[in-house]
This record gives sequence, structure tokens and C-alpha cells, in this order.
Amino acid sequence: MDYAKLKLDGERAEPLYLRLEAALEDRIKSGDLQPGERLPSERAMAARLRLSRTTVANAYRELESRGLVRSHVGRGTFVAAPPEAEDAPFAWRGKVASSVAYFGDGFSLRRLMQSGYDPNLISFAVGAPAFESFPVEDYLRLTEHALRRHAPAALGIAPTEGQPRLRRAVAERFKTKPERILILSGSQQGIDLIARCLIEPGDRVVLDRPGYVGAIQTFRAAGATLVGWDAARADLDELEDLLVRHRPKLIYTDPTFQNPTGRVMTLRERQDLLKLAARYRTPVVEDDPWSETYLDGQPPPPSLYHLDARNIVIHLGTFSKTLAPGLRLGWLAASEYIVDQLSAIKQHENLFTEGLGQFVIADFLLTGRYDAHMDSLRRAHARKRDLMRRALEAGAHRLAFRPPRGGLHFWCRLPAELDSRALLERAVGEGVAFAPGEIFYPDAAGRNELRLCFSCTTSAQIEEGVRRLHNAIAAEAEKSPARASSSVPVV
Amino acid sequence: MDYAKLKLDGERAEPLYLRLEAALEDRIKSGDLQPGERLPSERAMAARLRLSRTTVANAYRELESRGLVRSHVGRGTFVAAPPEAEDAPFAWRGKVASSVAYFGDGFSLRRLMQSGYDPNLISFAVGAPAFESFPVEDYLRLTEHALRRHAPAALGIAPTEGQPRLRRAVAERFKTKPERILILSGSQQGIDLIARCLIEPGDRVVLDRPGYVGAIQTFRAAGATLVGWDAARADLDELEDLLVRHRPKLIYTDPTFQNPTGRVMTLRERQDLLKLAARYRTPVVEDDPWSETYLDGQPPPPSLYHLDARNIVIHLGTFSKTLAPGLRLGWLAASEYIVDQLSAIKQHENLFTEGLGQFVIADFLLTGRYDAHMDSLRRAHARKRDLMRRALEAGAHRLAFRPPRGGLHFWCRLPAELDSRALLERAVGEGVAFAPGEIFYPDAAGRNELRLCFSCTTSAQIEEGVRRLHNAIAAEAEKSPARASSSVPVV
Repeated sequence: MDYAKLKLDGERAEPLYLRLEAALEDRIKSGDLQPGERLPSERAMAARLRLSRTTVANAYRELESRGLVRSHVGRGTFVAAPPEAEDAPFAWRGKVASSVAYFGDGFSLRRLMQSGYDPNLISFAVGAPAFESFPVEDYLRLTEHALRRHAPAALGIAPTEGQPRLRRAVAERFKTKPERILILSGSQQGIDLIARCLIEPGDRVVLDRPGYVGAIQTFRAAGATLVGWDAARADLDELEDLLVRHRPKLIYTDPTFQNPTGRVMTLRERQDLLKLAARYRTPVVEDDPWSETYLDGQPPPPSLYHLDARNIVIHLGTFSKTLAPGLRLGWLAASEYIVDQLSAIKQHENLFTEGLGQFVIADFLLTGRYDAHMDSLRRAHARKRDLMRRALEAGAHRLAFRPPRGGLHFWCRLPAELDSRALLERAVGEGVAFAPGEIFYPDAAGRNELRLCFSCTTSAQIEEGVRRLHNAIAAEAEKSPARASSSVPVV
Repeated sequence: MDYAKLKLDGERAEPLYLRLEAALEDRIKSGDLQPGERLPSERAMAARLRLSRTTVANAYRELESRGLVRSHVGRGTFVAAPPEAEDAPFAWRGKVASSVAYFGDGFSLRRLMQSGYDPNLISFAVGAPAFESFPVEDYLRLTEHALRRHAPAALGIAPTEGQPRLRRAVAERFKTKPERILILSGSQQGIDLIARCLIEPGDRVVLDRPGYVGAIQTFRAAGATLVGWDAARADLDELEDLLVRHRPKLIYTDPTFQNPTGRVMTLRERQDLLKLAARYRTPVVEDDPWSETYLDGQPPPPSLYHLDARNIVIHLGTFSKTLAPGLRLGWLAASEYIVDQLSAIKQHENLFTEGLGQFVIADFLLTGRYDAHMDSLRRAHARKRDLMRRALEAGAHRLAFRPPRGGLHFWCRLPAELDSRALLERAVGEGVAFAPGEIFYPDAAGRNELRLCFSCTTSAQIEEGVRRLHNAIAAEAEKSPARASSSVPVV
């Protein structure tokens, strides 16, 4: 249907959204819009009709409340089938708890993840290690060993806290006690457990801004009010100010190769942060997926967990960025009391974590194969980082970035006139995806930034993907000719 | 310490719990009770001192609020170390959300699970299929296939809804559409997602009584008021009465080889239940881990999901009872709207489900190997059931039970004078564990019942374990000589 021809009739005194609603209803009833057909996104409809997005959103909501359309999180709004008199489908929507409103949103982590497995896209959007470095032979050998030697332990009901063998192996590597380790089905589970354990609606959480989208979404879903701490500056005076002003329930931070900025907090900053946390009695969640992914032979400073003398830090680790996210294996280190509390909640979520993988990774760690793997993974990642850097620098419309020294991403600033979400729509059309800056902000900022993962695409894909990205930037820049030739300095 | 000598001094007008608190404080300060020492359980202390359990609980809580003891979920209450002036450990307890109180309890699913991996116990407590029937060679072959052919899909970021290949395979087997399948990290995750999606504190949930402990705990943790429906009778008039009286948010039921009773709802009962659900607009969660585990060549009637014409049923399935619980692979079938809503919540819990296992199981289903496996698994289970039946019938103190025709358990009634929790303590001393009846009841009932899993121990363990169980029963019966010789009729 050509939406540009949509006429907003009706009383001129009637609010615009009701006139839009009436116009769409006419088209649905006339059959111009067929059941199952997708309406344009609120943004796109607003642009086409030169209406505000709120007007479109209100019109869609009205239609939905009357059963004429249905919206699905992350997929859009669809014309509904006409209700049937008999055997009418059950109205599930009316049964959903009010808190679920928190869980959905227009541009979710789930939607970001989707670009990662779309075969038509070269995706720089999600962070994963180089798949060609995955130790396939070792994995198969250790799986066989686990099945032949450790069944039924690996196949049976197992401790919610994790297999003792893996807790021991992680504790040994991370230099803490096995009783302080909780194995997780991915470190995202740790964030969810922490939110369920510590956050009550209305609590405040101080977190890196920009910061990890999964943490933003999960703490928000738990009902927390999010307070951003400028992650690029990591100013401790600002942090103290936030602690005094907001009395947050916890501080969530990613001090090492911070996602998305790549910043590494210095030893001194770490010590000062811990002093503030102790002074204001505020727990610290240290999310650290990256400390093993340093690229230039320089391991980062000690973790907050190891610098902490007061038991105030919960440390999150993962194998998603060093082996593979598909394993869904993460862990956390914390006081035994917290391990105990979080286990009691984890039991509700999935009873315990998948067993075979735990045995395989435990043996991988204990035999030293993990260290050998990390050496070769770091070399592969450094090559890809350098390749992407050269490709990015070759473009006419320069992106501002600081080459990462660890982690898996470039954090880039666009020329000021470009909007990263609009660019993403264009880029997906060109066959390349990235993570738009705004998803890393708890507020509406970041429209000028974007994140590119350099590690999980092939060298050829990096070159082709960056070429497509440059095409998209050029096309977007043409739309804003006033400043199209401007280029921003490298920060 | 000999607690029987504990003197409750203090003003006679003072409440008993304060006098008990003072007495324990004296012992802690005198050093009679050392830091790290475990206090008797509330129940045991109450019995020794002839106090009510509430009195003991209040005394413990007072001591804990003053930092003199610490209690750990599922492990007990311990004398705390004296606080230190410097670097005092962080008082995490004060930070925990009030809703977390729901998550812990004296005899949790987690504690039940622990017996399953205690090497000193023969455990009939938890339900798992025969490990020796696990298709090790197929699993290894398909794992290799997945790693060589399906990486990076199997290793990378993947859809929260599940790998398309597995959704398709499950949908084909279960005769529904792939879009209506949500892959879960174990079907317990489905219960948790449903609770997070549909339950608000104060909502009522009608569920089987006795019924699955994981559902009881998770709906309770979500703040629901639990309303038991007598699962052994499965009386539809009673159900209608409950629906009218309580207006529940949902009905949770396990109609096929019900856990723990083993009952199979007839086709007529299923149809009537669905009519009631539709009339009272109450969604039905059909938990069905068992329908593939029928033992005497008689598949059960169609599922509620397949009989449902109104989209009112959410069906939970799992591979934990047919392959291995350690795989943590379950699934649910529901309306696309519900699949969408639950996925949005699942994303917070663990982003998505472990990948390799999904490919392996998909291929296992699609190649027909799963059917061959189920045939041999059913034969192995029937042999073990018969063996346990004969062993149980050989004891002097007879347990009343109806031999199961599917599922993995015997549900037994003890002679009336015996208490299954006291028996469990004795049985664990003898080296055998079972699931005490009370954990299957949302109220305090079931003290006279117990559940025995026949499938995941070896034949020798079944015989030895039942022998130990009979010894424990004999010893407990001696404690209650009045009716020790009584035997209950087989129901």
C-alpha cells in the first residue's frame, strides 16, 4: 500500500492520532490492508506522513486495543485477522503481568543479536571471538573424555553452583576459592540473578554510560532507575557525586577494555573506586568479559575483585569472548553469602548449567590448553583489528576512533550530521550491520556513535563489510549535504 | 555442645524466644559455641528444648540481626566470627531485595538435587533416565558433525527462541508450527518465564496437589498464592469450584503420568478441563515431561495442547527425562504471542540456549535415532520398574503404591505412624535418599508419603537401596511401637 496517499480526514478538531487511526481502519476494512500485512515502523510512518512519532504510536495503540492490529516485540505491527465468533483465540495480552512492559522495547538486544545470524548480512554488530580459532579437535576429544569418564556426573542432575571440577579450575585460574565461584549459563545470567537478588523497583543503579546493553535492559526490567557514569572519562569525583546524590543500590562497571569505549581503568582509579564504594557502602558489580583479550602483550591491571579487601565486589567472567558464546558458559566470583543467594534464584531459572560443556572447559583449563588457545586467539584478533583499522581509515568519510588494545570492538564517532540509527537502516540495505550507539546509553544519547566488532568475521568479510559501510556513510552524507565534506578529528 | 542443658533464664515475663536468644548469646560469648559452628536446625532445636519451632526461629532471627549468627539457605545457621574493626566484610544481607525471602526455604529443590550427586548415597530422590542407555556414540558423532558443518551457527550468538533447526525438528515431532516452539535451557526455565510473564504478587495459581516441587517453588517465589487441586482425584467439579472461588491467573497441571502420583488424565477429563479453562478464561500450563516415557506399550491420550482449539494452553516439554537432564534442553509450545513475550524475558536470563546440544538433538530427532533410543529406553525402564516393585514388595513393612505405567517414579504411602521427613534423615544415615512427600505439597501435607525414582540407578543399586530403605523403615517403626506391625493396604 502507498501510505503517502493516506488521507487524514475526520473533524479537524479531532486529535491527529485518532484521524490516523480512522484512516488506517478504513484501509483495513476495505481490504487495502490485508490480515498479516506489516505496517511501517512508527518511525517510518511518522516520516512518510510528516507526523510526530508519538502520534503514530498512539494511533497504533488504539488500533491494537481494538484488536485490528497486533504488535510483536522486535518484529513490528501487523494487521490482525478478523475475530471469529466461535473458538476465538485466547486474549493472552490481557493476562500478561504489568511488569512485563519493562521487557520489550523497540531496539532490543535480541534484535541486535538477530543481525549476527542473518546469512545476508556481514555483521559487525555482536561481539564474538574468531570462530576459525575455536579448538575443534580439543573440544571433540574432551567431549568424548567427559562422556566416557564423567558420566553420569556430566549428564545427570548437577549442582546449581556448577560442577565442582569447573569451579575448582576457574578458581585456580582466577586465584580465588572454589566456594566463591558460581558457574553461570552465560554471564548475562549473572546480571539477571544480581538484579533479581538486589534490585527492587525504584532502586537506583549507577552504570557505565555508554555501557553494556544487556545490563541496561536487565536492570531497567528489574524496575531500577539508571544513573549513567561517563565511562570515557571515568571521573571519580563525578562518581562520588552520583553516589551522594542518588544513593544507588549498586555500581555496575566494566573497568577493563570497557564495552563499548575500550577504556582501561588505571590501577589508581580502581583503588579510588573501591574506596568510594566502601565509604558509601555500595556494592560493585565488575563485569569483565575482556581482561583475557588484551592485544598488545600488555595484560590489564588487577581486577577490582582482587583489589577489594571488603568483599564488596561481584566479579563476572565468561568464556563467550575467549571460546564461543554458543557454549553459554560464564561464572561469577563473590562472597559465599552472595553465591548462596544467587544459587537459590538460579535454581528457579534453569536448575543448573549444562553439564558436558562444564567438564570440557574444566579440562581445557586444567591441562593448560586454554593458555595455548588464548595465545593464538590474541594473535588472530590483533591481525583482524589491524585489518579493520586500515579499512576504516581508507574511507573518504572518516570515522573517529581509537584503535582498541583489547576487547573485540572499535567504538567510532560519525561525522556530526549523521545519525547512527538511520545509517544502520541504510547499511543493512547494503548488507552490513553494526551496533548503533544509542543502545549503549540508558538515555537517548549516542546517535552519533557506533560499535564495530572486528573479531568474528573473516578477513575478506572485514574488507567487504567496511567497504559497504563506507558506501552507506557516503549515501547518508549526501542526504545532509550542508556538512557532507566535514570530517571529525580522531579522538 | 549439649543443647539439652541450655537453660532459659531471664525474666519469666520475657517472651521465650528472647530467653532462648540470651541463652545462646551467653554460650557464644563464653566460647562454648565457636565461630563457624552450626546450630541445630530450628526443628531439631525445638524438639530438644520442647519449644515451638516459631520460638526457635524468632530467637535465631534475633541473633542474626545482631550479627552473632549467619544462616545460609539450605545449609543451616552458623555462629558468626566476631566483627573486625578494620576492613569489616560487607554486610550483603542488608542489600538483598525483600522479594528474595521467597526464594529460600528449608527443604528446597536444590537440597533435593544434592542427594543426586552425593557419592555416598544411593539416590532415588531425583528423576533422570537410565544413564547407561544414553546414546554416547551417536552423541559424539553428531557433536562432531555440528562442529564441522554447523559452526559458527552452533558456536555463535543464536536466536533466543532457539536454533531454527531444532524448533523445526521439535515442531515436526510434536505436530505444531516451528514459530510456536520456544527452545528452553531446561523446562524449568519455561516455568520461570511463565511466572515472570504472567504472575504478579497476589495472583492465584491452581496447581496439582501433590505436584512438581519446581513449579510450587517458582510460582511461590513470584508471589503467587497457591491453590492445590487434588491431583489423585482430578475431579473437574472441584476444579470448577476452585476457578469460581479463586479466579486464578492460571492452571498448572501435569496430566500425563503426573508427578508424583503417576496418574494419567483420561481423554474426557482433558476435554472437560479445557472447557472449564475456556469458560473461566484461565490459561493452562501443561507440564509434560513424561508422555514419551510410557512403559507398557500404551501411549497416553492426546495432550491438552493438541485438544485445545482456543490457544489457551502453554505446553512444556523436555529432553531431561528421555535423554539426560545434564543437557538442559527443554521447549514449550504456545501461541506466537506468548513465544514472543517469553523470548523477550528469556533474553534477560541467558540470551539464548547452548548451541551445540541444540544441533545434536535436532539431528537426533530428524534422523529417527531418537525413536530407536526411546524404544530401548522404555524397555530398560520397564525392567527397572519391575525390579524395584519386587524389591519394595519384599519388605516386612509394606509401602502402599500403585506400580507406575509411565514416568520414572513410584509414589508410596508409609504406614500411618511414620513420618517421611524423619524417615529420610534415617535413610540418609543408611546411605539411601528419596524425595519426601511434603515437598510436593504447597501446604504442610504429605508427611506420610514419599517418591522413589527407579530409572537412574543400576539394578544392583535398586536392590541395595531398597534394602537400606527397609532397614530405615524398620528402625523408624521401632520408635513408634504402638502401631509398628500395622501394614497399609495397597491402594
